[in-house]
Amino acid sequence: MKPPCVALVSGVIDMRFLMPAFETIAPGIDVRITDVLGERDKIELAVCWAPPQGLLASMPNLRLIQSIGAGVDHILKDSTLPPKPVCRIVDPDMTAGMTAYVCWAVINRQRRFPAYCAHSAAGVWQEEAIESPSGHCVGIAGLGRLGTAVARALVAIGYRVQGWSRQPKTDPLPGVTHFHGKAGLEDFLARTDTLVCLLPLTEETTGFLGRETFRQLPPGAHVINVGRGAHLVERDLLDALASGHLSGATLDTTAVEPLPQTHPFWRHQQILVTPHIASRTSPATIARQTLDNYRHVCAGRIPSGQIDPRHGY
Amino acid sequence: MKPPCVALVSGVIDMRFLMPAFETIAPGIDVRITDVLGERDKIELAVCWAPPQGLLASMPNLRLIQSIGAGVDHILKDSTLPPKPVCRIVDPDMTAGMTAYVCWAVINRQRRFPAYCAHSAAGVWQEEAIESPSGHCVGIAGLGRLGTAVARALVAIGYRVQGWSRQPKTDPLPGVTHFHGKAGLEDFLARTDTLVCLLPLTEETTGFLGRETFRQLPPGAHVINVGRGAHLVERDLLDALASGHLSGATLDTTAVEPLPQTHPFWRHQQILVTPHIASRTSPATIARQTLDNYRHVCAGRIPSGQIDPRHGY
Repeated sequence: MKPPCVALVSGVIDMRFLMPAFETIAPGIDVRITDVLGERDKIELAVCWAPPQGLLASMPNLRLIQSIGAGVDHILKDSTLPPKPVCRIVDPDMTAGMTAYVCWAVINRQRRFPAYCAHSAAGVWQEEAIESPSGHCVGIAGLGRLGTAVARALVAIGYRVQGWSRQPKTDPLPGVTHFHGKAGLEDFLARTDTLVCLLPLTEETTGFLGRETFRQLPPGAHVINVGRGAHLVERDLLDALASGHLSGATLDTTAVEPLPQTHPFWRHQQILVTPHIASRTSPATIARQTLDNYRHVCAGRIPSGQIDPRHGY
Repeated sequence: MKPPCVALVSGVIDMRFLMPAFETIAPGIDVRITDVLGERDKIELAVCWAPPQGLLASMPNLRLIQSIGAGVDHILKDSTLPPKPVCRIVDPDMTAGMTAYVCWAVINRQRRFPAYCAHSAAGVWQEEAIESPSGHCVGIAGLGRLGTAVARALVAIGYRVQGWSRQPKTDPLPGVTHFHGKAGLEDFLARTDTLVCLLPLTEETTGFLGRETFRQLPPGAHVINVGRGAHLVERDLLDALASGHLSGATLDTTAVEPLPQTHPFWRHQQILVTPHIASRTSPATIARQTLDNYRHVCAGRIPSGQIDPRHGY
């Protein structure tokens, strides 16, 4: 089967880093970049990160729209999106990366490692208050593939773990207390010492990490955002930290990335910002999964990671 | 059953912190402290952390020697130890504490969190090299109760995990490659990117973390010592870091505790020292388990956590 003509499109990042991977897997493949797309009717496969509004609609023979990440919100916000299959990347390495990130962030604050790191650098042998993981409840908002993997790992470490999702879970996770829907949110938040946001970004979940959610968390709670920047209301976080109601935040994603130099999150004692590195997929995995998905679509099979545009994930 | 007369004995720490827990569980109990033991023939139960040499031998009616930690090396080094049952604490909270500590330490260095913490404090959005957990092998030396729990959690996160123990394991751990004995050590070390020492301290394992072990690790390896200070040859660690062969060390225990102010481990860029906080048991758990064990011994049953003095664990 002849490899398809591929467009790598993004309105915000340089997609050239993916070219060698496609050329290695399918030598001679016709790969084009956002600004130099040539004849649009040749393009059958679009590989995207936040594609410019309207660009995909200009490709009449498109058969598949592939996100290079675990989320697709950056594609679905295009109001002119053509009715073609949209897929996200499903990658065990991405899952492991996310799981490691969240476990580190939970333990780091619960076990007071920032203080121990400072003590070690200053030459101070000083014990901080020690609380067992079994007395600390981690609440995971979003129990998709990533949330499920994170929940399992935190249970294996010894934390109390609960999850919240839009719909009831049909396959309950061992050791995880489950809540769902608007009705379950209050109870979920009231018992959550560390809140992890792994929700997909939809209209409903935008601003989920805001005043109303923070108010329902117990005093001293820690918030970890590994979803999207738009899940968080930045002003509300700063207020909740300033009032002492929240004890800290670990943010791998922000509304504007890179986070501007003058942003108050930088250098904030209780906020750790990381540059969207919790979960990354290798170019080789993206290229392989994309081309496999294209073959599935051409053969009338369901591609891996196809999302339901009505739900937004 | 009348509560026994209990002696809380240590040559190095003040054991008074345990008294309230014993008095709460067994009101009216006769609890005595190292320096004020009174008539020795009354004492039936000794609760110990590094008891002074010869002190236990002076108690003719002792029925049980209970460590307040997961290890018993600090008791067995008393060459006059009377032939009574010696027990260690077995505590799920202690296991969870240790598991959380080791997972944090592994992820912290593998995912380059020290750099991200520094960037966040300085206002720098900068990506460090990203390597997936599945490409990183954690080798756990010592597969007892703690090593097993740590291995399970690291597998759940997504690391490659291997373990090494003195004897072959009869119940293999899913997802964990197992090595054993002197014959298996070389292969184990050659594939280990992060080495975790969770061995009991015995004559054989003293100095395990020394030049010979380090030499067999791949370049850039990270060493985590959550065993005992005497597992580590301090000079050899400093040499291996200076030569660049090892990339770092995370140490929760040191030969002398507290670590002296002038020690070169403090302020060392590649060494993180924490003050023996990986795994702690609450006084309530120690008191409950100790008194349960005493009842078991009196009833001719095997107490929880009884060790085999020939093996030293």
